[in-house]
Amino acid sequence: MTDTAPRNSERLVAMITSPLESEYAERIAAAYPAQVELIYRPDLMPATRYVGDHGDPAFRRTADQEREWHELLARADVLWDFPPNERLPLHELAPKLRWVQTTSAGVGQLVKRLGLQNSDLLITTASGIHAQPLAEFVFAALLYYSKELGRLREEQRAKLWNRFCGIELAGRTIAIIGPGRIGQEIARIARTFRMRPVAMGRRNDPARAEALGVDRLYDHPELKQMLAAADCVVVCAPQTPETDNLLGADEFAAIKPGAVFINIGRGTIVDESALLEALQDGRIAFAALDVFREEPLPPSSPFWEMPNVLVNPHSASTVDTENAKLTELFIRNLGHYLAGEIDRMSPQLDKRQLY
Amino acid sequence: MTDTAPRNSERLVAMITSPLESEYAERIAAAYPAQVELIYRPDLMPATRYVGDHGDPAFRRTADQEREWHELLARADVLWDFPPNERLPLHELAPKLRWVQTTSAGVGQLVKRLGLQNSDLLITTASGIHAQPLAEFVFAALLYYSKELGRLREEQRAKLWNRFCGIELAGRTIAIIGPGRIGQEIARIARTFRMRPVAMGRRNDPARAEALGVDRLYDHPELKQMLAAADCVVVCAPQTPETDNLLGADEFAAIKPGAVFINIGRGTIVDESALLEALQDGRIAFAALDVFREEPLPPSSPFWEMPNVLVNPHSASTVDTENAKLTELFIRNLGHYLAGEIDRMSPQLDKRQLY
Repeated sequence: MTDTAPRNSERLVAMITSPLESEYAERIAAAYPAQVELIYRPDLMPATRYVGDHGDPAFRRTADQEREWHELLARADVLWDFPPNERLPLHELAPKLRWVQTTSAGVGQLVKRLGLQNSDLLITTASGIHAQPLAEFVFAALLYYSKELGRLREEQRAKLWNRFCGIELAGRTIAIIGPGRIGQEIARIARTFRMRPVAMGRRNDPARAEALGVDRLYDHPELKQMLAAADCVVVCAPQTPETDNLLGADEFAAIKPGAVFINIGRGTIVDESALLEALQDGRIAFAALDVFREEPLPPSSPFWEMPNVLVNPHSASTVDTENAKLTELFIRNLGHYLAGEIDRMSPQLDKRQLY
Repeated sequence: MTDTAPRNSERLVAMITSPLESEYAERIAAAYPAQVELIYRPDLMPATRYVGDHGDPAFRRTADQEREWHELLARADVLWDFPPNERLPLHELAPKLRWVQTTSAGVGQLVKRLGLQNSDLLITTASGIHAQPLAEFVFAALLYYSKELGRLREEQRAKLWNRFCGIELAGRTIAIIGPGRIGQEIARIARTFRMRPVAMGRRNDPARAEALGVDRLYDHPELKQMLAAADCVVVCAPQTPETDNLLGADEFAAIKPGAVFINIGRGTIVDESALLEALQDGRIAFAALDVFREEPLPPSSPFWEMPNVLVNPHSASTVDTENAKLTELFIRNLGHYLAGEIDRMSPQLDKRQLY
C-alpha cells in the first residue's frame, strides 16, 4: 500500500487511524487504486485485543513513531476514524483534512470536544452499522431475564430439575426511548415476537408512529405515562443536552413495577443513583446496562454486585461482522466522495444536533 | 360448578383432570352453562407448583378421594387432559368419554401406550400453543451463547471490564429439524434477525419450502448436507418411530464445527452419547437442551456439569400465559363440539402419525 503504490500527487490520501484487520485495509486499497493512496500502518497503531476493537486507549507511540505518525497525518485528505489521544488540534495535525469516516455512531460529543462543531469538515459515522447487534443484545437481555437463564444455570450447577414457568414476550409492551435506527430495529424485532412497541420521540403524532413502526409515539411531557405502561424500557437515545439526565428519580418512580430496563444509549441519560434505588427496592426487576456515566465502570460501582443487573462492558455493539460492514460503508462513501456526490455520502453527522 | 349447577341429564359433562387455576375453570363453566356441566375438583388434584403446572406425577389420592374421582370420571363425556397415573384402561374408567383436550402437544406416544390408537376417541391437543414460548427459548439460548452472557456474568462477579466481540445472528444459517408449527415460528423470527432459515422435512420441494417460510427444504437423505451448512441446528420434531435416533454419531460428525445445537423436541430423537462426544471435542460449541431421554435428567448425566450445555428442565414451553390460551382453545373447541362441528375442532391428533 503506502510502500508499494506509485506516488501520485493527484491521488487522494486516505489514512487509517484506528486498528483494522489487514484484509479490510487491502479491500479499501483495492477499491480505487488509481484515485486513492491508502496509508495503513498497523505498526504505528495499538494491537487489536479482539475482533472489531478500535483501539486500546492506553496505547502510546515512541517519539520516533509519533513523528512519523504526524508526518503521515499531515498528508491526509481523508481519515478512517479521528486519531485518538492527540494534544494538538486536528486542523493543525491534518491541515488538508476534508472528511472523516468514524467507526462509532455516537461521536457528537467528541466532535464538540474537538471544537469541530462549526467547521466545514465532513463527518460520516457508523450510525446504522450497530443497529442490529444492539437490537440483538436487547433481546438477549430480555430473554435472559424472561426465561430465567441466570437462575437456570445455578440450578444446573446444583443438578436440580425444578420445572418452572417463564415469561412470554408476546403481548408485552416495550418502550423505546429514542426511535432512531437502533430503536426502529428493536421495534421491528419486538413486533415479530408479538410484543407491542411504543416509543418516545420529539413529536407524538400517529403518522410518525406508523412510519417508525411503533404502536404509539409519546412526546417528552408524556414520558412518565409511557414508563407506567411498559413491561420493558429500552434507552437508545444519543447523548445530547436534551437527553442528559432524562431518566431521574421521578421517572423511575413512574415505571411499571417489575419492568425490565435496558440502556444501550449513553450513561449520561440516566441518573444512576435513582436507577440503583429502583433496582434495590425491586421496582425495576432487572436491568441490562451496556453504558455508564464512567467507563470503564469503576470497581466501587454497586452495579457490579447486583444479581438483577447485567453489566456489559460497552461491547453490545461489537460483533464479528462489524469491520466488514464498516469497510463496505467506507468504500461506498469513498466512491461518492471521488465522484463529488457529497449528498449521497451517509450517514452524515448533523453537527447542530450532534447525532 | 358441579356443586351449584342444576342437574340436567341433557347437559354434556366435561371434567378437568389436571391442575388449572380456578379463574380459568370459572371461565370454562361460564361459557355454555345451559349445555355443559363442568366438573372441577382441585381438592382431588395435585397442588400447582408453578403457574402452568399440569400436575406433580408423585401426587396420590387417598382411597376415599380415589373412589370419588372415579365416580366423577364415570360421568364424563369430555376430559380436559388424560387423567394421569390410572391403572385401569380409560374406556373402563370413563365409558361415556368421547373427546379429550390435552394440555400438551406431544401426546402421540401416550395415546399409543393407552391403546387408543385405533379407538374413535376424539383427541385435540395443545399443538401450536407452545410454538411461541418454544421459539422464544430457542432465541434466548442462541443469543445467550452469541452474546456470551454466561462469561459476562462471571466477569461481572470479578468486576472485570473487558471489552469483547460477540457474534451477530444476521447472516447465519439456522437449520430446523421438524418444520411444524414450532419450526415455522422459529423460521419467522430467524428471518427478522436476518438469519437464513432452512429445514428438514418429509419432502424437499421449493414450493413447500416457501410455504413453510424457509430458504431451503432438505429431505431425510440430505440431512447431513444440511447439518454441514448450519450455524445453529434446532430439533423440534415430534417423537415418532421415524425420528427415533435421527441424530447419531454420523450426523454429529457432519455438523459444521462450532455450531450451536438446541433440542426442544424430544430426547429420543438424539443419541445422547454421540451428542456428548461432539460437545466434549468442541465440534458443537454450545447446546441448549430442554428434553432428554430420561426425565428428570438423572444426577449421573454428564450434561449437568458441562459449561457449554444449558440444561432446561423441560420447561421451555411453560409460560405464564399458557393456561389462558389453553382455556380459550378449549372453549372454542367446546363450542364446535356442541354445534356438531367436529371438523372445525383443532388441532386434532392424527392417530396414525401420532402427532
